Amino acid sequence: MVVGLGTGSTAKHAVDRIGELIQKGILSNIVCIPTSTRTQEQALSLQIPLSDLDSHPVVDLTIDGADEVDPHLNLVKGRGGSLLREKLIESASRKFVVVVDESKLVKYIGGSGLAMPVEVVPFCWKFNARRLEEVFGYAGCRAQLRRKGGGDNGNYIVDLYLERAIGDLKAASEAMMRMSGVVENGMFLDMATAVIVAGSGGITVKDKV
Amino acid sequence: MVVGLGTGSTAKHAVDRIGELIQKGILSNIVCIPTSTRTQEQALSLQIPLSDLDSHPVVDLTIDGADEVDPHLNLVKGRGGSLLREKLIESASRKFVVVVDESKLVKYIGGSGLAMPVEVVPFCWKFNARRLEEVFGYAGCRAQLRRKGGGDNGNYIVDLYLERAIGDLKAASEAMMRMSGVVENGMFLDMATAVIVAGSGGITVKDKV
Repeated sequence: MVVGLGTGSTAKHAVDRIGELIQKGILSNIVCIPTSTRTQEQALSLQIPLSDLDSHPVVDLTIDGADEVDPHLNLVKGRGGSLLREKLIESASRKFVVVVDESKLVKYIGGSGLAMPVEVVPFCWKFNARRLEEVFGYAGCRAQLRRKGGGDNGNYIVDLYLERAIGDLKAASEAMMRMSGVVENGMFLDMATAVIVAGSGGITVKDKV
Repeated sequence: MVVGLGTGSTAKHAVDRIGELIQKGILSNIVCIPTSTRTQEQALSLQIPLSDLDSHPVVDLTIDGADEVDPHLNLVKGRGGSLLREKLIESASRKFVVVVDESKLVKYIGGSGLAMPVEVVPFCWKFNARRLEEVFGYAGCRAQLRRKGGGDNGNYIVDLYLERAIGDLKAASEAMMRMSGVVENGMFLDMATAVIVAGSGGITVKDKV
């Protein structure tokens, strides 16, 4: 079984647990693909056998957290800075299970008022930040370079702050991806197969319908 | 006037000539934006005043070469490896004049049998090369990592070799751009405003209709 290992405070617990089950011999015949250098280090310390997408282009299951989850299970991810690797690995996953607490549930993408990350090449990042503000001007978009915790790949992360919903998410994502210099964006659309939500009333599971 | 300076053996002559006209005082009130570090070095040696897109987001005119020109003035560029910078600057140009010799004229994009470059992040480049081969499998696509002369931005260049036309160019370009890890591709669609062709019979100018 090929398992993608998420990044962040929530995913960390899942990685710990996978390491424990491997060491107890309960999980075997498993190889894992980390979604960041940080998770890779954690997995190595737990002696979890690792691989990559070059060797295993199809991933059976990935478990990861998210920064926002909308009612259609669309996500914002990458505030931790490992946007591109997460998206590559989660796009290649047959099942992608997201684990969040209920504070991450939003009515619409951007609705938390927190950042939506966009990974850009360093060259002319200001030019691209300005273009992003223009393209999403109707949503009151403000773009800001993230000072710390940039991308895993030598790229920069520009954080977008939106005052209002940006409308058609797929169209918005494609508008960003068409821009030269934009490497990836933090919207994970139509990718999660299930979202496990921990709330004051216990655990609920939302499946993709 | 803001002028974009192209990259490559043909563009080099234009940069030399601009430098000469500035030094003779014939051209003044001009600032130039180089499309590669190589062109930047050439321009500095000629004492051409330089800027960038961050300071000058609108470029009046860019002059550059191309690797292929199709009958609709769509181009393949970037075999020299400065794909992303060229596309950023040429997209921001009011006028984009391409200078080629007639050997660069092709019936369809990819028709020269030479490489169509795609800039990808180093992470999982093999995975992405395989995906590109799959997506363009109908055109007999073969993807190969360029060993030397990679991107200006720490990224890799994967060269695509096509046996047949890839059909709808805009759709093909967008399919590439949607892939996580693809930064830019070598198709410059609907961007050239004029193409100057040097042939055995003299100079001809093709304008965008």
